[in-house]
Order: sequence, then C-alpha cells, then structure tokens
Amino acid sequence: MKAIAVHAYGQPPRLDDVPEPEASGPDDVVVRIGGAGLCRTDLHIMDGWFADAIPADLPLVLGHENAGWVHAVGPAVEHLAVGDPVICHPNLTCGVCRPCRMGDDMRCTSGPSLPGLMCAGGMAELFKTRARAVVKLAPEAAPAEVAALADAGLTAYHAVRKAVPELGPGTAFLTAYHAVRKAVPDLGPGTAAVAVGAGGLGHIGIQCLKAMTPASVIAVDTSEEALKLAGSWGADHEVRADGQQAQQVRDLTGQGADAVFDFVGEDATIGDSVAMLRPGGTYYLVGYGGTVTLPTMAMVLGEITVAANLIGTYADLADLVTLADQGKVTLHSSRYPLEAANDAIDDLRHGRIRGRAILIPG
Amino acid sequence: MKAIAVHAYGQPPRLDDVPEPEASGPDDVVVRIGGAGLCRTDLHIMDGWFADAIPADLPLVLGHENAGWVHAVGPAVEHLAVGDPVICHPNLTCGVCRPCRMGDDMRCTSGPSLPGLMCAGGMAELFKTRARAVVKLAPEAAPAEVAALADAGLTAYHAVRKAVPELGPGTAFLTAYHAVRKAVPDLGPGTAAVAVGAGGLGHIGIQCLKAMTPASVIAVDTSEEALKLAGSWGADHEVRADGQQAQQVRDLTGQGADAVFDFVGEDATIGDSVAMLRPGGTYYLVGYGGTVTLPTMAMVLGEITVAANLIGTYADLADLVTLADQGKVTLHSSRYPLEAANDAIDDLRHGRIRGRAILIPG
Amino acid sequence: MKAIAVHAYGQPPRLDDVPEPEASGPDDVVVRIGGAGLCRTDLHIMDGWFADAIPADLPLVLGHENAGWVHAVGPAVEHLAVGDPVICHPNLTCGVCRPCRMGDDMRCTSGPSLPGLMCAGGMAELFKTRARAVVKLAPEAAPAEVAALADAGLTAYHAVRKAVPELGPGTAFLTAYHAVRKAVPDLGPGTAAVAVGAGGLGHIGIQCLKAMTPASVIAVDTSEEALKLAGSWGADHEVRADGQQAQQVRDLTGQGADAVFDFVGEDATIGDSVAMLRPGGTYYLVGYGGTVTLPTMAMVLGEITVAANLIGTYADLADLVTLADQGKVTLHSSRYPLEAANDAIDDLRHGRIRGRAILIPG
Amino acid sequence: MKAIAVHAYGQPPRLDDVPEPEASGPDDVVVRIGGAGLCRTDLHIMDGWFADAIPADLPLVLGHENAGWVHAVGPAVEHLAVGDPVICHPNLTCGVCRPCRMGDDMRCTSGPSLPGLMCAGGMAELFKTRARAVVKLAPEAAPAEVAALADAGLTAYHAVRKAVPELGPGTAFLTAYHAVRKAVPDLGPGTAAVAVGAGGLGHIGIQCLKAMTPASVIAVDTSEEALKLAGSWGADHEVRADGQQAQQVRDLTGQGADAVFDFVGEDATIGDSVAMLRPGGTYYLVGYGGTVTLPTMAMVLGEITVAANLIGTYADLADLVTLADQGKVTLHSSRYPLEAANDAIDDLRHGRIRGRAILIPG
Repeated sequence: MKAIAVHAYGQPPRLDDVPEPEASGPDDVVVRIGGAGLCRTDLHIMDGWFADAIPADLPLVLGHENAGWVHAVGPAVEHLAVGDPVICHPNLTCGVCRPCRMGDDMRCTSGPSLPGLMCAGGMAELFKTRARAVVKLAPEAAPAEVAALADAGLTAYHAVRKAVPELGPGTAFLTAYHAVRKAVPDLGPGTAAVAVGAGGLGHIGIQCLKAMTPASVIAVDTSEEALKLAGSWGADHEVRADGQQAQQVRDLTGQGADAVFDFVGEDATIGDSVAMLRPGGTYYLVGYGGTVTLPTMAMVLGEITVAANLIGTYADLADLVTLADQGKVTLHSSRYPLEAANDAIDDLRHGRIRGRAILIPG
Repeated sequence: MKAIAVHAYGQPPRLDDVPEPEASGPDDVVVRIGGAGLCRTDLHIMDGWFADAIPADLPLVLGHENAGWVHAVGPAVEHLAVGDPVICHPNLTCGVCRPCRMGDDMRCTSGPSLPGLMCAGGMAELFKTRARAVVKLAPEAAPAEVAALADAGLTAYHAVRKAVPELGPGTAFLTAYHAVRKAVPDLGPGTAAVAVGAGGLGHIGIQCLKAMTPASVIAVDTSEEALKLAGSWGADHEVRADGQQAQQVRDLTGQGADAVFDFVGEDATIGDSVAMLRPGGTYYLVGYGGTVTLPTMAMVLGEITVAANLIGTYADLADLVTLADQGKVTLHSSRYPLEAANDAIDDLRHGRIRGRAILIPG
Repeated sequence: MKAIAVHAYGQPPRLDDVPEPEASGPDDVVVRIGGAGLCRTDLHIMDGWFADAIPADLPLVLGHENAGWVHAVGPAVEHLAVGDPVICHPNLTCGVCRPCRMGDDMRCTSGPSLPGLMCAGGMAELFKTRARAVVKLAPEAAPAEVAALADAGLTAYHAVRKAVPELGPGTAFLTAYHAVRKAVPDLGPGTAAVAVGAGGLGHIGIQCLKAMTPASVIAVDTSEEALKLAGSWGADHEVRADGQQAQQVRDLTGQGADAVFDFVGEDATIGDSVAMLRPGGTYYLVGYGGTVTLPTMAMVLGEITVAANLIGTYADLADLVTLADQGKVTLHSSRYPLEAANDAIDDLRHGRIRGRAILIPG
Repeated sequence: MKAIAVHAYGQPPRLDDVPEPEASGPDDVVVRIGGAGLCRTDLHIMDGWFADAIPADLPLVLGHENAGWVHAVGPAVEHLAVGDPVICHPNLTCGVCRPCRMGDDMRCTSGPSLPGLMCAGGMAELFKTRARAVVKLAPEAAPAEVAALADAGLTAYHAVRKAVPELGPGTAFLTAYHAVRKAVPDLGPGTAAVAVGAGGLGHIGIQCLKAMTPASVIAVDTSEEALKLAGSWGADHEVRADGQQAQQVRDLTGQGADAVFDFVGEDATIGDSVAMLRPGGTYYLVGYGGTVTLPTMAMVLGEITVAANLIGTYADLADLVTLADQGKVTLHSSRYPLEAANDAIDDLRHGRIRGRAILIPG
C-alpha cells in the first residue's frame, strides 16, 4: 500500500509502497484511513528534532492524527465491526494500570506509545492501532472532516524545540478541549475566560468554551484577521495584542479574568496572561516553548494557580467528537491527496494553510 | 492600657500607655487579649520593610495573631457575649461582597484591612476588631495556647523581603492548614504528600495532613533536629535535604509524590519540589521569597499544577481551631509577659525561640 | 402608602393605606417596589394553609418576590446607593453563622425570616428588607421584568399543603436555577437531562440547562402546548407524558438520562422520573407534594441518587440575574396594577395567567 | 481439583472433584486460592433465591470473595507473574466501554459477570478470572487474611430477597469502603458521620471513616457488644438503638449529622437515619431490603440527599487493600478448611461466626 515515510532526517518524506499491516495481536485494529492530519510536529520529526528524545527506526511512516473505517480486528476485539467509522487516540495504552483504569490515558505507566512518532502512523492507506485507542464515530460521519481532532504528539513531544515562533494551524485540537474541560466547573454565569491565541488551538478552545459554559469569552491575538474569525466562532470580545492587552482584559472584566488559556505559551504571552487574571484565578498553560518566570510574592498575593496541560484523554476525545457531531464545534481544514503530501508540507512550512491540512488516501 | 507600639522604624517598640478602644461601631468587638503571637513579620514591620508597601501611621500597636475573651460588643452584634473566649482572623472584611458571601475572605473586594499592620493590633490589654473576624473557641479554651493559629500578614505581606533564609517559628499556621485543605480530595489511600520545610509552618502542615488524609507524609528539611521532630508530629518518612532529596522522594514513592507543599518557597526549594512530583501532581507554593522558573516543556510533559496559597479563610481558621480543640493539631510556643516584648523580639532575632513566642498581658 | 394586605384568612386581601417603612436598623434597606410577583403560595397564605405552620400577625402585607430601586438605607449600609435597581432574596439572614459565611443562605442558623409570609412583604409602594438580601441589578435594568426571579417561600414553605395538583406559572424560578447549578459538573457533552414539567419552573430550568451545559435537554409534560413552548426555550426533544414517557426517554437516550429534574414532585412523576435515569444517574426533586416511595433494592442496583432542593442561595440569585441580563434566560409575565391585585388573584385561581403575574405599584 | 459446588437448590453443596481451569483466553488468569470468603449471599444462592433473577447452570462452584496467588496467565497478560499474591474484584468487565475506561467498573455496559453466582467461583483449589479483575497484593501479603475485602454480589444481587433480618458478618466490606470514599470531601474538621449498624459492614466503615477523615464517628447499633467493638475500631461515640437514637445523635451533634451511612437499610433504619441528618446532609444507603418512604415536603425543607451505593470499583478495592496493608483497616475472620465448608455454612446459618468465615484449600 502507499504510505508517506521519512527515510532520512532533513529530507522530504517519500511516497513508498509498503506491506499492509495485519491485525495479528489479540487487540489489534487496522483502520482504512479516511484522513490523516498534517501538523507542525511532522515538520519537526522530518527535520530530526526528535531524533534523540524519541528515537525511531527509519523509514518511519508519519501520521498521528488519524481517522477512517475499521478494516480488520484482532481476535479479542468484540466492540468494533468492520466498516465502523472511527477516530484514533494518539497514544496506545495498556488498559490495566491505575491511570488507564481511571481514564487518565496520557499517564499510562507503560510510558508513551505514539504511532507516527515511534512506529508506523496513519499517512497511509491502512493504519494499525489497538482497540483501546479507537473512538467510534456516528454511523454517517465523514472521518476526513474530524481527523484533526485527534492531534497527537505536538503538545507532548516537541522535546527538542527551543522556541516556537507561533502556534500555527497545525496544533492540538484535543489539547484545547482538555484544557477547557478542566475549568468548566469554575466558569459559571458572570465569569470571563480568555483565549490567548485565536489560531489552530484557540479556535477550538473558543468554541468549546461557548458550548460548555456561560462564561464570556475574550479572544486575544496579534492578528486582526484571527480576531475577526474569533468573533465568528462565538467570542464575546476581541482584544488586539498590542502591548496593552492585559490592561484591556482587566478593563473588560473589572477584577480580571477567572481563567486564561494560553494557547501560545511563549515568554511574551506567559507574563501577560497571568497579568489578566483576577485574584484567585487560574492560568492554563497549553501551548509551550517559553519559560514560566513568576515571582512567588506575586503568585501568593494573587493566589494564582498555574495548570499545565498534556494532550487529553480518550474520554476527552470522545466528548469532543460528540460536540463536533452535534455541530457545536467545527474544524477548518484543507484537503490534499496522500500523494501530494509534500505539497501540503510545503504549504505548511510557508504559512499558506488556513486551518488544518488533511491528507486523503486515493 | 498597656500596648507595644512602634514609634520609629529601626528602633525597638515601646511599652506605651494608650486609651482603651471602644466598641463604638455597630459591628465592633473589643477583645481582652489572652495572648498575642510575635512573628517574623513584626520584625519586618519595625525594621520598616513595609513602610512603602503598606503604609501605616506611627505609633502603630503591633500584633496580628490575637486571641482572648470578648470584652465589649457593638449594638449590632448578637452572636457574641462578653466573656466568650475567641480567636481573631487577621483580615477585617465587608461581609456583603461576593467573595465574603462565598467564604473567600482573603479576597474581600474592599481590599486588605489588617490590624497590627494597618491599624492598632493586639499586643495590648484590649484589641478592637469586628464581628465577622471573631471565631469562638470552646468554653474552656485557653486563648494563649491557640493565638498562634491566627497568623496574619506574614505570608501575604513580606512585600520588601528579598530572600527568606529559613522559615522560623514566626510563620503562618493558618496558611499551612489552608494549603492542606485544598489538596484533601486528591490524597486518598496509597498517595504520598511531601512537606518541604518541617519548621513553623511544616509542623502544622504535617499534623493537618495526618489528621485529614490517609496519605503517607514525607518531611524534607536540612536540619536533623527538625526531621526528628517531624517524626514525632506524625511524618511517615524523613528525608534530609542534602541535594539528593528529590531522588530520595522518588525512590520512596515510585513515580513521585502526589502533592508537594513547599513551606519555604525559595529558589532552591522550588525546583527540587517540582522534581519530587509524579506526572499530574500538584506543587503547593506556601512560603515565598524566590522566583518560580520552570520551562513550559517540562511543565506540560509532566502536566504539573502550581497552586499558590494566601493565608486562609475564616472557615479554615474555625476548622483549624476544631482540630486543635480535638487534640489533632498542637502548637509549640514559648510565653513572655507583654512587658517583656523586647526580650521576645531579641530571642526571635537570634533564633532562640522554639515554636512561637506568645505575649501575655499582665 | 398603598399595600395589599390579608386581614382574615379565607377572604380576599384588601388595598390598605399603611405607614411607610423606615430604614431604622443599621442594615435596613427600604426598596421602592418596581414589581412584585404573585404566586400560588400567596393563594395558600390568604386561604390560611400556613396559619399553623408559619404563624403571622394579621393584617399581613403579601409579596415575597420583590424588585425595585433602593429608597433608603440604614447607617451601616455602604455598598448600596439610593436609586440602585435591585432584586430581593426571599430570606433575611444573619451573615455571621457558618452557613451564611459559606454562601449557604437557606440554612442560616437563625432559621427562616421571610417577608411576605412572616412580616410585611413587597406588594406595596415601599418594602423593608436588609442589606444582605439585596442583589444589585444592571444600571439600566427594569425591576418589574425580573421580579419573578426572586420567588420565595413556595418551595420551602407549603407546610400544610397536602397535594399539589400541578405546578402552575407561579412557581420557583430561583429554585429551578439552583437545581440545575448543582448538576452542571456532571452534564458534559453527550449527556442528557430531562425536565419533568415544562411550566413555570420548567421553562427556566430548560433555559438554564441550555445556557450552562452541552447536555441534550428533554422536556416532558402532559400538555402539547407546554411542549411546544419548551421547544422554543431550547429543549432538544419533547416527550408527551402519556404513560410511556419513561420508555420514550430511555429510547431517546440509550441507557437513560444522566439527570432528571422533577419540577412537579407528585407521586405520579416521582416513580416515572426515577425510571428515566441511567444507572448511576441523579434525580433532582424540585417540586413537591407527593411521597418518595422507592424499594432500596432498585435504588442500590441502579446506584441512584435522590437530591432534594430548597429554593436557592444569594449567589444563585445573582447568577440568575446575570443570565437574564445577558439574555440567556427570559421570563414570561403578565402585568397588573397593584390596585388590581384581586383581579390577578382571580386570574391565577382560574388558570388564566401565562407565565407569572407581576403587580406594579402606581 | 477440589471444589465446593451446589448441585441442587435447598441442599448443602458438595465437595467435588472437578477439572482444573486453564488460562485459555488471552486475558485469562488462573489463581491458586489462598482463601475464599463465605457470605450470606452464598446461603441465598444454595437456597435458590437467585434461581430466577440470576440463573446459573448447576452444579455451580461457589465463592465470590477470592484471594490467592497467580497460577497461570493468558498470552495477553503482561502485568502479572506466576506467584504474585492477588485479590479478585467480583465483577468481570470489558475494559473498553466508557464506564470501564472511567473507573466505573460496576456499570460496565456488558452487564454483570459474577463468578460464584453466574459461573465457577473460588471455593476451590484454582479459580479462573480475568486480568482486569485482579488486584496485586504486597509481596509478603497473606491472601487468606484479606479475602473478605473482595465481597461481591451480596449488596448487588439479592434480587429476590424481600426482607433482610439483619446484616450479619457476611456482608460487603468493599461496599462499605465505597460509600465512605464518596463522602470524604464533605467530612472536614468538626463534622460528624454516623454508622448505622456496627456489624460486618459497619466495622469496616468505621475504620475507613477514621482513616480517611477528621470527622467524629458515631456508631449506632441495637447490640451492646457490637457498640463495645465499635469503640475498639475507633468510633468516637456509641449510641444504643433503643428508639431514641435519632434524638441522641442530634443531641451529640447539635444540628444533626453531616452524613449517615445506613449499613442495614431496613424500613426501621431508613426513617431513623434520615432523622439524624442536619439540614443539607446526606444519607448513604448501603444495606438494603426495605423501602425508602419519605414525604417530599420533609426532603425539600431539609434539602436532603439520598445516595444509594452498589458494591465498589476496582480502584476502591485497590485502595482498601492499601489501607489494610498499612494496618489502618483490619478484618475479623474465622478460618475453616475448604473441606469443612458445610461446617462453616452451618455456623453462619446459626449466627456462630464472629467476623467473616474464610475457607482455606488444602
């Protein structure tokens, strides 16, 4: 079958002809790919940034955001049938450790097991995963439309990345949902939540906040165009990040925001984001790249909480799929044939993609 | 009446004869002092560290940790009777803003109002406070024994302090309780909590953890003597802070601790404390003085939460009084006559006090 | 001033000329009434049902759902100014007991203190309450439009009522909000909530559920007209209560609903409501009149929780006012001049009111 | 191998020689039994009470409270090694449905699968279960000492039982733990919890409350002997159930208890238990047999919550094992050789067992 594989770091991946995977293990599931998201992490993989931190044998088939239809299942898999439309969680988990049993999938005590980074991913016609990583979609769902919900390693595994100039479209939708979900109980009527960065992560975060809470949502971004879009996704206020954004948020909210979601996570946004909080508020660190540098004095006087976020759980992904299915969250994406992967990569490198690039096999 | 008042920064306070306060306002309460705690914050006040940050008119009667018996009440006070033994919360609050109504006393929207820092405190025979700040003690309680539970500004108002060499006896007992209370739901059977700093704050924190959770408690300190005492307060393990403490905590706990309470909060303890956490664990910042400097990459991969703490609420103080009344938490203190305040101050400056110094009026 | 007062049980109230109340106590607030809700509880009061359970001296000025503008304040009231538009919580509380301090206003240890039932209410030109019971409205708010949000004793004090044939328009809007608020954390994406009774309480409940959760909302009622309206308030599904309603809810939801809000609370609805739950679901008892009769065997096998609800807190009322101010919750009401109180009473007794009757002074 | 099997309802089980089970399925685990608890449910099974509700093919090997050492594992089992000491959760679950993934094991959507009731149990030399049901014990643990922690179906599956004369020693230890765990966040300093029934369930419940909360614990029982033992397990107060018990609890607590755990669940205890609650308190229904009959008026005025409980989760069992391992919870049991099962059954039927009877193979 066709697959997009990295053969050498620093070179574009190739369209290979590789053997089809088989559901040989008891819990294996082979998925016929409907769409595979291309994300900035893929650029970093092919550029070799992960070579030391998360070593993988080359050639490596890329693709950690995968959706499609069940093609074959192992003998122990009883809850999935051939033909079911599905989306795949990025991490393969053991299912018996305590974190797995409690729904804390990203902390499986076996450690990360990430197709597309550590073994063959889904930029191919067929993709092998395991039963526990498969979320069923509604019967009539179109996998290609939701593939980008399953963003994987980005947030978690930019281990060599020293600085992230910006979080572009290729970012972690699932991560955005997860961060919002944590804050829901605190965001009652009359509260205010800020989304710093109204791009790939932010546009999902804003929609999740509107779908799940009665909080006012303030979008903060450097780009007027992004802010215009933020309004169309439901943001109640848009604030241009021009150096006065923290003051503007305090003007809009009185005492400051109850929650600030930093979908960027750079040195510049961290201090500003914390400065937007009301006393007792929470700063959700979602994007990353910079360093949190906060005097304990200010943290204690403001009684601030800083909550970092790592991708999300299987249940989070299932919930997010439900919101998408109900039309409460929609993704923006551009499609490319699988064979045109290098065109998509080129467009991503040069900032020519709006939303997410999705590769579609033949 | 007699009172200990600061007349000039940089000079010892004096024993003054001042007019007795009266319960002139509708909600006023005058308390006959049974004991007033002396804390490191008092040293900083008399040294002038707060002169800019929290300006006060001199002479200023010191004392922000006060307990005694009701002496007189204003016309609107119905729930207190003359003679009731009481302990006083350090902050005077409005009672009608939303934080006050929800029990979030430290975030009263009127801002801080701290006797002993901003107006006359309790190092005197009589002390004027307000009804909302008064916690009733059990009928037979000895106020002098529990006065130090009400520690006030220390945590909150060391505004000029650049570095805290150690947390001595003069530290925030109420703050320690508050931090523990937050974490209780997460600390089930088989979990582990670390107390970094087994001194004034830590000895209360350890006892609260043992009284309120089934978690194993690990005390970490640089002093062998402090660790020995930690064992007597109920710590399950003692770890010497010799540079290998984070590794030792990980060895004791497997994946790391579920919660780390940093009662020191210096640059040196912050990184070490975070390094003791399991993935998904929480770092409670209680003491302060240093700067939190954490790479976002490590925070996100570990999905760490950093929760700062500011003193505590009225309900927290009432709960802590209950634990003390039930014998589950005990304070260590040394008593001095009010007139000998400068002896106590001298002993505190030179590290000669074990536990808390309590001043007792004639 | 003019006031509507009960002089003898069993007789219509009279339009009296009574002395104006004064803000004589330190925390008193006199409100110039913009609108006072008329509710079924008022019928019960004038019919004498409460004569034994909640004795009051006659004549008694009615009115426990009051909104207007501040007319005068006592000397200790600093956060309210003459002219502020306000709505009044139905219970006067002490402010210093632990429930008051924690926001649990209905459990003030001083016991209930309910104007309109136990002392003069707000069916008058002026109404005396206390500072702690007053919620400020937005500057441009029209008190008459929101008065019914403050429904008072209905839920709590029908002490003699033996059977409630139905919950009509004159029911507890605040109570409805309170019940929904409790359940919010459990009602994530993909969950389902049922409102049993789409009348006075239910129409607020449905709007609150839609504003605050991503749950699907199913309205259940015996009336086709009520169900049609339920759809206009945002219900996702409408189910006619024709004997098969529990089965229909299970058909719609698969395993059953996550939460059922019973805004009726009669013998007939209790069993049906519980039968609509999924295993582990919660039944919120809001309306009342019947008896909960459930075999422990079925409760345990289904691991059901039954949560009763009593009016709501000050913070709940403030939140509800915010939702109304943001246009997320709207009330349906019919206005009558204060002088025409007996016309409104007559219309209410004969089922001729849609929504809530509001009395408007001169 | 030897096994105790029911051949006909109404007759004593027989000691059979049956084929050894094999770990033939990928997730199978065969356990060499160290001890199997005998419980009142076993009497009901052999008496035929479950014949209709939970039909099983006879002969049926009994035993739903099993502990021992791993004897063999299926090919997909990687986290267990031959020789590991283990205890077995009573329900076999699918592991991939949402309840299983979230730790809600008793609500696996595949429905109950209960060895000892529906297929061969553990009153035998070897017992076949599945990987997800196995909790590892500490390396040096003695399985026979903790077997009774795994009580199974009792609480859940007395489907035909119309009245439970009393909850004897053969009751659900795990269930007791589960009920306590739910209430922990509400049981802070100064609160009071009541254990109604200080027998088989109650003695575990009392120890769990003391290990996990700072609440005062009040034991209520009809038996002076049981109350004396309750004191030895840590109860702070003992109240004889002589008709005045609700009043006595209110006298001890002021406003009533914060939580009442009814480990009996009969008509007589239900009303009394609810009468012990403070306003806003929660009644935990653990034992069962009677009918909850509560007027909605009283429930609403008291804003009472009734929370039923069904056995417990895998994580609960693991936590309980940890508490036992730490010496915070201890079980009382009497041992019998497996061959003497009918002696144990006879002793259980005639009330001659203190604590739990445990059958020990060869």
